[in-house]
Amino acid sequence: MKAAVFVEPGRIVLTDKPIPQVGPRDALIRVTTTTICGTDVHILKGEYPVVRGLTIGHEPVGVVEELGAAVTGYSVGQRVIAGAITPCGQCHSCLGGNQSQCGGKPMGGWRLGNTIDGCQAEYVLIPDAMANLAPIPDNLTDEQVLMCPDIMSTGFVGAERGGVRIGDSVAVFAQGPIGLCATIGARLRGASQLFAVDGLNERLTVSRHLGADTTINFREQNPVDAILSATNGRGVDVAIEALGTQSTLESCLRVLRPGGVLSSLGVYSGKLTLPPDAFAAGLGDHSIITSLCPGGKERMRRLMNVVESGRADLRPFVTHRFKLDQIEEAYDLFANQRDGVIKIAITT
Amino acid sequence: MKAAVFVEPGRIVLTDKPIPQVGPRDALIRVTTTTICGTDVHILKGEYPVVRGLTIGHEPVGVVEELGAAVTGYSVGQRVIAGAITPCGQCHSCLGGNQSQCGGKPMGGWRLGNTIDGCQAEYVLIPDAMANLAPIPDNLTDEQVLMCPDIMSTGFVGAERGGVRIGDSVAVFAQGPIGLCATIGARLRGASQLFAVDGLNERLTVSRHLGADTTINFREQNPVDAILSATNGRGVDVAIEALGTQSTLESCLRVLRPGGVLSSLGVYSGKLTLPPDAFAAGLGDHSIITSLCPGGKERMRRLMNVVESGRADLRPFVTHRFKLDQIEEAYDLFANQRDGVIKIAITT
Amino acid sequence: MKAAVFVEPGRIVLTDKPIPQVGPRDALIRVTTTTICGTDVHILKGEYPVVRGLTIGHEPVGVVEELGAAVTGYSVGQRVIAGAITPCGQCHSCLGGNQSQCGGKPMGGWRLGNTIDGCQAEYVLIPDAMANLAPIPDNLTDEQVLMCPDIMSTGFVGAERGGVRIGDSVAVFAQGPIGLCATIGARLRGASQLFAVDGLNERLTVSRHLGADTTINFREQNPVDAILSATNGRGVDVAIEALGTQSTLESCLRVLRPGGVLSSLGVYSGKLTLPPDAFAAGLGDHSIITSLCPGGKERMRRLMNVVESGRADLRPFVTHRFKLDQIEEAYDLFANQRDGVIKIAITT
Amino acid sequence: MKAAVFVEPGRIVLTDKPIPQVGPRDALIRVTTTTICGTDVHILKGEYPVVRGLTIGHEPVGVVEELGAAVTGYSVGQRVIAGAITPCGQCHSCLGGNQSQCGGKPMGGWRLGNTIDGCQAEYVLIPDAMANLAPIPDNLTDEQVLMCPDIMSTGFVGAERGGVRIGDSVAVFAQGPIGLCATIGARLRGASQLFAVDGLNERLTVSRHLGADTTINFREQNPVDAILSATNGRGVDVAIEALGTQSTLESCLRVLRPGGVLSSLGVYSGKLTLPPDAFAAGLGDHSIITSLCPGGKERMRRLMNVVESGRADLRPFVTHRFKLDQIEEAYDLFANQRDGVIKIAITT
Repeated sequence: MKAAVFVEPGRIVLTDKPIPQVGPRDALIRVTTTTICGTDVHILKGEYPVVRGLTIGHEPVGVVEELGAAVTGYSVGQRVIAGAITPCGQCHSCLGGNQSQCGGKPMGGWRLGNTIDGCQAEYVLIPDAMANLAPIPDNLTDEQVLMCPDIMSTGFVGAERGGVRIGDSVAVFAQGPIGLCATIGARLRGASQLFAVDGLNERLTVSRHLGADTTINFREQNPVDAILSATNGRGVDVAIEALGTQSTLESCLRVLRPGGVLSSLGVYSGKLTLPPDAFAAGLGDHSIITSLCPGGKERMRRLMNVVESGRADLRPFVTHRFKLDQIEEAYDLFANQRDGVIKIAITT
Repeated sequence: MKAAVFVEPGRIVLTDKPIPQVGPRDALIRVTTTTICGTDVHILKGEYPVVRGLTIGHEPVGVVEELGAAVTGYSVGQRVIAGAITPCGQCHSCLGGNQSQCGGKPMGGWRLGNTIDGCQAEYVLIPDAMANLAPIPDNLTDEQVLMCPDIMSTGFVGAERGGVRIGDSVAVFAQGPIGLCATIGARLRGASQLFAVDGLNERLTVSRHLGADTTINFREQNPVDAILSATNGRGVDVAIEALGTQSTLESCLRVLRPGGVLSSLGVYSGKLTLPPDAFAAGLGDHSIITSLCPGGKERMRRLMNVVESGRADLRPFVTHRFKLDQIEEAYDLFANQRDGVIKIAITT
Repeated sequence: MKAAVFVEPGRIVLTDKPIPQVGPRDALIRVTTTTICGTDVHILKGEYPVVRGLTIGHEPVGVVEELGAAVTGYSVGQRVIAGAITPCGQCHSCLGGNQSQCGGKPMGGWRLGNTIDGCQAEYVLIPDAMANLAPIPDNLTDEQVLMCPDIMSTGFVGAERGGVRIGDSVAVFAQGPIGLCATIGARLRGASQLFAVDGLNERLTVSRHLGADTTINFREQNPVDAILSATNGRGVDVAIEALGTQSTLESCLRVLRPGGVLSSLGVYSGKLTLPPDAFAAGLGDHSIITSLCPGGKERMRRLMNVVESGRADLRPFVTHRFKLDQIEEAYDLFANQRDGVIKIAITT
Repeated sequence: MKAAVFVEPGRIVLTDKPIPQVGPRDALIRVTTTTICGTDVHILKGEYPVVRGLTIGHEPVGVVEELGAAVTGYSVGQRVIAGAITPCGQCHSCLGGNQSQCGGKPMGGWRLGNTIDGCQAEYVLIPDAMANLAPIPDNLTDEQVLMCPDIMSTGFVGAERGGVRIGDSVAVFAQGPIGLCATIGARLRGASQLFAVDGLNERLTVSRHLGADTTINFREQNPVDAILSATNGRGVDVAIEALGTQSTLESCLRVLRPGGVLSSLGVYSGKLTLPPDAFAAGLGDHSIITSLCPGGKERMRRLMNVVESGRADLRPFVTHRFKLDQIEEAYDLFANQRDGVIKIAITT
């Protein structure tokens, strides 16, 4: 089968691989649609290390091709998605409610395209299939559910773990795909004063369309000043960091009211600094909560419900479409953020 | 009246002041017992700025001397305590559940000995008396409730906001008065594997007496290695920081399991750095929760119940006793941590 | 001044009373708009006992006329609302987070038109004014904020204490003013499959307009069967009871999934029965959570923000308008639910 | 193998059965110790229906005899327990945090001795072994962990889901094995005023030994009056029902403060009535939370930690010991509550 494989920093190439063998708890999925994540670009650039030869990709939409001997409750031919995070459901971490940290290892639940072969391929093996295969409602297309495995789950958890409540003021820093989904999530949970911050006006236009009340282009105005001013100096109840930089993290702290929550989604590659004045020297009752994308089939079921109910329409996120054969071209476009790309649908 | 007043960095002196005028929502308390806090030493050294001439002290035990015109429900002569934090109960922050951040200002609830005159004096004015005066049960002595206003409330909130549950592994870094109370608090909430870390063996002896299962002198062994080893590499569910340094904060992160909570009580005077490897680059579902001492009369009532029930006996914390007349001497002893001092009772 | 006073069961009459004296913690409000609540009708009918001579009404919109001597932070002439529930903010219950149960008494926070004179009058005294007066944003009319003191606060708390999450299935039983607001609240918190049940098709039309996905007229079909069928037998995550009858409570239990939450808003006048099969004999991990309307100025501020942001537009609730002089006529219309009445605005 | 089988109401007999076949996700456990639960007596009496021929028992301590083909991470010969509730970990309910309601069915997680053969036998098949087998620490005996699968897990969850906090007043109604464990649990979570109610003085002696502050024999005094008096009319923060009768449930409501939580553990066989005066007609912000015993290997691991740490010593619960051969005699003793029996250890 064809698979997009990490060869060395700078090179992800389409190559041939054998179709994987199905273990007793696995399912083999024929991939119909997948996409490229910002994390995959980090892998491409060698910023996030994976073993050479690994198939990349963690956002699978497809059809059940074969089921492991111990897997019950599914049938061959079913349309399914699996989350980017594929918890086993049966280890101490999963049973204790930390499914993303499956096995008790940091990010342990992120296996596809990280510690095992991923889904930018014709076929992908889903581990612990019974915990992870989520049937797609008949009336939803592949593209309608393509954001569920990662983008939507991650963005929403920013609002969820931030504890956004009806009537809250919320600021979301960065409006890439994750940040846009955090904006949708904050709106869905009842934020009534919602700030979206980014440096691209076209992104901010999308933010407004998705529910932001106020958009702030940080190249045009200081977002900290703007938000403090708009809240009469009060600050926001929840600030969501959706990029992974010192600057956005620090801005989140500086717009947060005493007692507020900084919900962090970013992947930080360097040291972070917390200036004491920005969090009241530790006496402001602030919380900093980091979250990894929740996975598992129940999460996917709920997110697909949100799509099906019309509460969130993420189809506009797919700005470009490529065949798997053209995936190297797709990486080139996405890694360089050309042509207003938000997300790319890759079909087989 | 006599009052211990901040004159300039390095000098807190006992001086004469007029007895304060009682406003309509205030109560005047004749102080019978109070104590010196580590924060007061920061003030003494000029590390925490207050206005010159301010009376220091935020841990009052005393007797109602006079009640404001609008104050009902109390009577002159009642024995009472008030918390270090004196929330008004009626502002947006207080009504929203952020009483320590009263008025929406960072640390806004900390008024005594910070923004208004404190209680290292013969009399102290308690603002918003109806929210703050907590009658002392008859069978408790001044010394038995002396830790309630700050030390006990702060230490316990470390365990409470850390969300310690029955069966948790918990590490408390630093075993000063606050850390010792955090150890008690973690034990009271059901921690079943409780590590206490400090550099003084005499403190660690107290920790064991108060409920720590394992004590670690960081001068003798690496606490991170020791804790990871004792938890079979799993890490702790909750790590409580009770000092306010880069080193203890970082150690907390390094012993924390994915999905765990770092509950921070320390006052940080410099920049803090979060090394990305210590919190899984933001993907470990970690929480960092900072807390200021909860106050208000309901908090004080509950803490005094804990004392009255015998669940916690903090009398051994009082290692030294001085009269208010000798308070400069008491500061000298406490600031230099001589003679195994934990806390000093100051009586009038 | 004119005031609507309970005389005896069956009679609330407009009468003359002296303007109240302002105590030190009170504020006198000149009422500009108020409304009649279903609870007032219970009082009228003698089903809910109050003392004879009491002024009825707990939903005040008005202007500050006079402030008590101990009240700071407000000025005469300000437009304000106060909640139906007026917590003191300073008792053990309030400081412990149970503001509606102020003073530790059941419903202790409900004072206006219950234990003290209410606001169906030209003037009303607001107790503990500093905790309760909420300034109205200039751009909002009286009618826009008229639902905040009770209807909106009560309905929303049904969704809030029910713990509605993004992607939940939620059923709201009864679509009177409270139930309609519960429907809005559930939608605002992210319910993605929202059932509204009532016996009046005109009410259900409003429900759909406010965000219900599916409406069920219980006179036309069995709501339990309909909801179980629409959820493929799974049941709902949260069921909200908004009427106060055995039948609606029991239906809530019967549509609830194991582990689900029944959030109860109704006032029950008789014994309630829980059939063991409807809650798995106590082994289904169900929760039954009852809630009284939250009050206090912070709650009011947040609700007015929701209105101001456009997230909820409750102006259509006002179906009829009367002058205070005509309030007996208004009671007659409202008590008999004539003419499609939802809520009546009473102006002075 | 020998197995205690339900034949008909009134008869559980020891009989011969084939050793079960091991499916791919199962484990076969050789039972070394088990016990009889109050629920088993309900089965015996025909009050809780199970199919005829079913092996009874849901509290297994034993040794791994054989592992299914898909089971990894365990080895033959390991000493293990499994919870009374054996969640799969991989269905929507389990992944959503409702493991006891596995499969979305009420009590769906209770399989052993209910919907599949149980462990009052020489061997028992544990379903979904990877989620359920919990290795026993070497230093703990069978009897030390015998209460973990059900009694301890159920009793503790009463305190946990009741949200007991440091400084709470808590009442536990009924001091059978579950109620005694609820008393331990409430103490472990920090209750500082703990009432235990029962009709047997010998049970109440055990309660006091386990941490109750005040014991009340309901045959000697009215527990509602006694508790209200001891709390100065305030009521308790949390009331735990540990029997399953109208009388105890109603007493719980009557001692509960406004805003308090009734945590219900009982199995109710008849209709329950909630008198409106006992829960403020639905306006007291009360919660009624029912819970089924939590299971799964992570829960078992944590409970065994509590035992290992010495926080709870449940060995005194084992008042009698029988061999499996004598199990009919054991049932007779236990069902008739003769001879001061609390729990019986059955060994093979």
